[in-house]
Amino acid sequence: MIIIGEKINSTLKAVRPAIESYDEAVIAGLAKSQAEAGADYLDVNAGMFNQDEPDRLEWLINTVQSTVKTPLAIDSPSPAAIERGLKANKNGKPIVNSITDEKKRFGEILPLILKYKTGVIALCMDDSGMPEDAKGRVLIARSLIGKLTKEGVPISDIYIDPLVRPIGTGPHYGIAALDTIKAVKSEYPDAHIACGLSNISFGLPARKLINQTFLVAAMASGMDGAILDPMDKKIMSFIYASEALLGIDDYCGEYLGRYREGLIEF
Amino acid sequence: MIIIGEKINSTLKAVRPAIESYDEAVIAGLAKSQAEAGADYLDVNAGMFNQDEPDRLEWLINTVQSTVKTPLAIDSPSPAAIERGLKANKNGKPIVNSITDEKKRFGEILPLILKYKTGVIALCMDDSGMPEDAKGRVLIARSLIGKLTKEGVPISDIYIDPLVRPIGTGPHYGIAALDTIKAVKSEYPDAHIACGLSNISFGLPARKLINQTFLVAAMASGMDGAILDPMDKKIMSFIYASEALLGIDDYCGEYLGRYREGLIEF
Repeated sequence: MIIIGEKINSTLKAVRPAIESYDEAVIAGLAKSQAEAGADYLDVNAGMFNQDEPDRLEWLINTVQSTVKTPLAIDSPSPAAIERGLKANKNGKPIVNSITDEKKRFGEILPLILKYKTGVIALCMDDSGMPEDAKGRVLIARSLIGKLTKEGVPISDIYIDPLVRPIGTGPHYGIAALDTIKAVKSEYPDAHIACGLSNISFGLPARKLINQTFLVAAMASGMDGAILDPMDKKIMSFIYASEALLGIDDYCGEYLGRYREGLIEF
Repeated sequence: MIIIGEKINSTLKAVRPAIESYDEAVIAGLAKSQAEAGADYLDVNAGMFNQDEPDRLEWLINTVQSTVKTPLAIDSPSPAAIERGLKANKNGKPIVNSITDEKKRFGEILPLILKYKTGVIALCMDDSGMPEDAKGRVLIARSLIGKLTKEGVPISDIYIDPLVRPIGTGPHYGIAALDTIKAVKSEYPDAHIACGLSNISFGLPARKLINQTFLVAAMASGMDGAILDPMDKKIMSFIYASEALLGIDDYCGEYLGRYREGLIEF
């Protein structure tokens, strides 16, 4: 499972002030804690600072890189900010978060992916928006994978995000995400599937229970990446248990090791 | 989700002495608690008493029926004990637990299902044993469904049990069960799929975590029944969360109601 640590994000109320005040200790701490907890990538996002987002993002990246060697997921609505991030990057091959099948967005992001040879999170949306059902999302995934690979992006550098909408606002949104994952994984076994977890439970009580349930169902459907808080021992325990269940963790060796280290919470 | 309460079972160390000493209060208590916790069926098993199993099973059934109206899952290796149970049954349409595709077992159990018009749990095993992979299990499921429906058993009375073996003894056993569930549900959407949960985690630490993970993955694969302890609030919470996620619980109404009643544990 590819874990993208979500904590260094300006949309998080607890983190935004640290970016605002250039608090290196807090950001370095979040980088170190997430890396130690098992993050394979660290998402970095300064999107809430639209006056000087590229500067803030560069500072975030430099601060992270002075602490850990974990590769980055460079997360922005702004192509200019993403390019500044890619120039500042020294932590190995990054992931660009994100491209879509919207004409403008695709045209702006593709050259960056090609120039810097990055991975990319590809959201199942286009100029008509986010399709309600799996069928429409799979069509967009197919379009994105087709165009990206034709331009020379290796399929294993593509992380399809099926898009997760809250089940409290539409009873079909869980199935829409899960069926998209199943269909894309079955058609493109070499592409990755990654998404955020928390949107699924928006507006509901006991959100962590719903998020854990979605994580397991999505992994059983073929998801092999997630944007989450790796310091949440409970959600990480469900990842380890799912890997054991799905035969990814041969004879449960990793699971047993993590249990002995006290990393399994239940 | 069809919940078959597993607690009235002579193989359980904590329950066996109550059957041994004909302790009505304990058995009636287990019946009442499981029914109140949401059991749709109550499994009754006296199989550890092989000297007088039919008598013990009849006593169990009478004791349960004097307390609750919940239908029974009559669980025995012995056709004679099952028939005694079916004669004693007054709690509506029961389930026979279980038939297999073994020649002898099939021949002994089929007449009872037809005579008493019961549901039946059909295990994916035959005279060659339990197949290692999903392919072999699906072949047996197909054979069982074909023969049972040909004899007049409605497909909605059949509960296919994919058979669950411990992932600690073979890394492929999780996938074997999940892929069997997916294939059978896709080929026979009107058949039920039901299995026990706890065998998956045999020999591993933090068994409840693995059982919860398997439950969610199996429900996401199409399982609509399970033999479990309905008094385990945690596992029931994962059932409610999975139903909300899978769109079975429209707009999460049941989930929200259960949360308000204090039934969601996380």
